[in-house]
Amino acid sequence: MKFEVFVTLKNGVLDPQGKAVENALGNIGLSSIKNVRQGKYFTIEVDEHNEEKAKTLVKSSCEKLLANETIENFKFNKIQ
Amino acid sequence: MKFEVFVTLKNGVLDPQGKAVENALGNIGLSSIKNVRQGKYFTIEVDEHNEEKAKTLVKSSCEKLLANETIENFKFNKIQ
Repeated sequence: MKFEVFVTLKNGVLDPQGKAVENALGNIGLSSIKNVRQGKYFTIEVDEHNEEKAKTLVKSSCEKLLANETIENFKFNKIQ
Repeated sequence: MKFEVFVTLKNGVLDPQGKAVENALGNIGLSSIKNVRQGKYFTIEVDEHNEEKAKTLVKSSCEKLLANETIENFKFNKIQ
């Protein structure tokens, strides 16, 4: 079973990486692009046929490793 | 207008970062998670009311800066 996982900074958390991208876009003439926020995107496969169990494993991966819940949110979708 | 942009490694391109995450998950008891691939996820706002023009700007941002098309694919969706 295949999932995609999104990890994004919570609202209000400064995003210097996104800001750097935004400035770089401005420098190459794309100044109408604003408020760039950068997050992480994972695709993962779970070796588990029960969908509920697979989702529990993905959630556990996010909570334990992929996301820092103090400053980040995560969400995930089954894609296969 | 708000878009989300996904930048992912092309199939066949080695992903040491994803591999490191997979190994780390194995080390904390989540060894049923396989084939982790890590990509980038951006949310961006475009100061443009015409949807076609906005999409052209997002595509241009991807081609010029956000993605390295030699090794990465990109896709984007309008979210607001």
